[in-house]
Amino acid sequence: MSAINTDLYELTMAAGYFCARKTDEVATFELSVRRLPKNRNFLVAAGLEQAVEFLLNFKFLPQEIDYLRSLAQFKNTPPEFFDFLAALRFTGDVFAVPEGTPVFANEPLAIIRAPLVEAQIVETYLLSTFAFQTSIASKAARCLIAAEGRSIVEFGSRRAHSPAAGVLAARAAYLAGCAGTSNTEAGMRFDIPVFGTAAHSWTMAFPTEEESFRTLQRLLGESTVFLLDTYDTMEGARLAARLGPPVWGVRLDSGDLGALSREVRRILDSAGLRDAKIFASNDLNEDRLAELVRSGAPIDAFGVGTELATSADAPSVSAVYKLVELKRGTALQYTAKFSDEKSTLPGAKQIYRYPDCDMIALYSECNSDFKGQPLLRPIIAHGDLLEPLPPLEKSRSTAMSAVAALPEEIHSLERTITYPVEISTRLLNLAESLRAEVQALSS
Amino acid sequence: MSAINTDLYELTMAAGYFCARKTDEVATFELSVRRLPKNRNFLVAAGLEQAVEFLLNFKFLPQEIDYLRSLAQFKNTPPEFFDFLAALRFTGDVFAVPEGTPVFANEPLAIIRAPLVEAQIVETYLLSTFAFQTSIASKAARCLIAAEGRSIVEFGSRRAHSPAAGVLAARAAYLAGCAGTSNTEAGMRFDIPVFGTAAHSWTMAFPTEEESFRTLQRLLGESTVFLLDTYDTMEGARLAARLGPPVWGVRLDSGDLGALSREVRRILDSAGLRDAKIFASNDLNEDRLAELVRSGAPIDAFGVGTELATSADAPSVSAVYKLVELKRGTALQYTAKFSDEKSTLPGAKQIYRYPDCDMIALYSECNSDFKGQPLLRPIIAHGDLLEPLPPLEKSRSTAMSAVAALPEEIHSLERTITYPVEISTRLLNLAESLRAEVQALSS
Repeated sequence: MSAINTDLYELTMAAGYFCARKTDEVATFELSVRRLPKNRNFLVAAGLEQAVEFLLNFKFLPQEIDYLRSLAQFKNTPPEFFDFLAALRFTGDVFAVPEGTPVFANEPLAIIRAPLVEAQIVETYLLSTFAFQTSIASKAARCLIAAEGRSIVEFGSRRAHSPAAGVLAARAAYLAGCAGTSNTEAGMRFDIPVFGTAAHSWTMAFPTEEESFRTLQRLLGESTVFLLDTYDTMEGARLAARLGPPVWGVRLDSGDLGALSREVRRILDSAGLRDAKIFASNDLNEDRLAELVRSGAPIDAFGVGTELATSADAPSVSAVYKLVELKRGTALQYTAKFSDEKSTLPGAKQIYRYPDCDMIALYSECNSDFKGQPLLRPIIAHGDLLEPLPPLEKSRSTAMSAVAALPEEIHSLERTITYPVEISTRLLNLAESLRAEVQALSS
Repeated sequence: MSAINTDLYELTMAAGYFCARKTDEVATFELSVRRLPKNRNFLVAAGLEQAVEFLLNFKFLPQEIDYLRSLAQFKNTPPEFFDFLAALRFTGDVFAVPEGTPVFANEPLAIIRAPLVEAQIVETYLLSTFAFQTSIASKAARCLIAAEGRSIVEFGSRRAHSPAAGVLAARAAYLAGCAGTSNTEAGMRFDIPVFGTAAHSWTMAFPTEEESFRTLQRLLGESTVFLLDTYDTMEGARLAARLGPPVWGVRLDSGDLGALSREVRRILDSAGLRDAKIFASNDLNEDRLAELVRSGAPIDAFGVGTELATSADAPSVSAVYKLVELKRGTALQYTAKFSDEKSTLPGAKQIYRYPDCDMIALYSECNSDFKGQPLLRPIIAHGDLLEPLPPLEKSRSTAMSAVAALPEEIHSLERTITYPVEISTRLLNLAESLRAEVQALSS
């Protein structure tokens, strides 16, 4: 987690700003998602904690400075720039929506106001941090809607995009309301409940399935989960029924989970194991969860892996980090892009949340004009954290209640519904006058 | 990068093996991809270097042991297990195909032979390490096929699944043949060429586009790339033409890249800037690259970001880690799974590569029976690296020439072609006799 984790152009621009004596200018950047991906009517904001950790510890190590010095791109750069870089810390302000807040297209998840060079260099790290965790939390929210109250455990570390991504995916999934994760490091670092008992290789490591089941039961007692499908699922179920308690339940990990869960339920019930639960996994996603729940399959909890930890149907969001204001001395300049598909709105903003719509307004507009709840809150001022971030548990409650409070149709897993997000008149007017100004300048 | 980065069930199984006095048994696990994802006729193996680094440094830290002790799942576990865990290192053997080697479904990328507990605990980390980098290298190979010799720079850090994933995505893309990356940390850590000049925010940070272009040119000289589309692409191109050399070229980052590149080329040529190159980016993938190349768009190099760094059309591969052998004292037991869609073949294997097909055979089959090139090589023996891994540059050459040597039809970006991978008769016979044995036992 170092400042060098950034795109090179952030650093060539930094050198350019240094040479152009623009290091005193204060830039305001806004981090938002340009368009919601397919299959997403809302996103769940996540990643702020890791972003804050990065900003509070932002600095270049000596060997990183040496590396930069060696690059062809910096051959015309004066040596003072590297001293400047070595001393650089993040001294700016951050405003952000609390983790767990549902957000929509073009709503700033975070606003960074800092000396131009600082604000620019942190772009890459902040984008991937917010975008990834927000993707996973949003996917988890869909899975939870589909599960209709049944528990979901995040199971996808092995398919996550690197071991580090697996830990963060577990965090984001829990934040959105999952019951826990299989990832032990995530459990330790973020105090998330961890789950796991045995794999197929466990069964295969014993001469007989029965010996493997008995050994597991001796070790785990009431936490025992018999994995039924190493050889033959129904044989596995009959063996579990014969062994009886103590047992939490059984796990199905292949085949027709709906049909198998019914047969297994019958076998367990016939043996008097009415309290034994059925846990199901195997390439699940929100569509398959909804299908199983609708069909009344007697499954008590789900393990969702690959599809959740990679947000497989929408593995990225179009997160962008756009310059919206630039302050030179006392002169404030609003900035925006006006090219066709990538235009942006100028000025630092606030989001006001009303019961049935959001309003994006300029941060400078008087709060009392808007009765909605302002979502962006000050997090870091002059490089210092203003108050501790809420514990993950609290953000999880925020997420679960805020998602539940969204209009029912926004919960739809199949239909694309656009939540109404309005733009304030002053913001629209500012954008128009700025566009006219830029066109006048360039013609 | 610690041993705790694993699924909890690896650790409950470890406790179980410890209690069942199975810590002396030696397990052989095989890491392979069960099915090729859609749009992939081949994969490019990647991730071995990071896997080896993990195994050579494998250990639990004291605070991790304390955390495990606190978990409900370990309440019946004898305290000696935690001492055992604290002293645990990876003492096994690893065989793997060299990075950059094309592989197909069910071909082992790596074989891990180690005391059961060690081999089990490293599963999660190894899977996500091999699977992720293999996904990205394979996606990069497709993009390079589409680019028909034009350079591709990996540009996707901001959309990668966490800052750490961005660094590894850059590595995997370079390994497959990309010209470099925008990710500075990847450049430093892996000695990969890095690229980058300026973003839209650079243009916006100056009172006029002209001032921003001139300042960039003073700094970067012949490395200058003018980003044309902050306000109006054609205005930007005319400005670039007016400024003239020194310049590397221009970048287009929005709009109809084919049409714009033609117009921009004309403007540059009219100004005598025939050597100025056109670089294009903006949500590119192999399909759009192929389209642009086919249409004859005068684009010299591409930046491919989000789609490459997330392997967007196939964001995961079905990587699995399966127990294939278990040795108790001198008794060798072959193992396999026989449930419907998840069956596996028993025994440690070797892959023999022939000019027009591969053959998967038992590792124990005499090499001289097979004239093909054996792909799996010994990497770690008894916990020690046998010889330094090849430098990334070398693996990159391996990848580029091996992919080029695949039959032309396997390069198809649209058609699904299954490369012929045969199974040796002895391996098939072993699987059949094991299946019969397991069925006899369970009935």
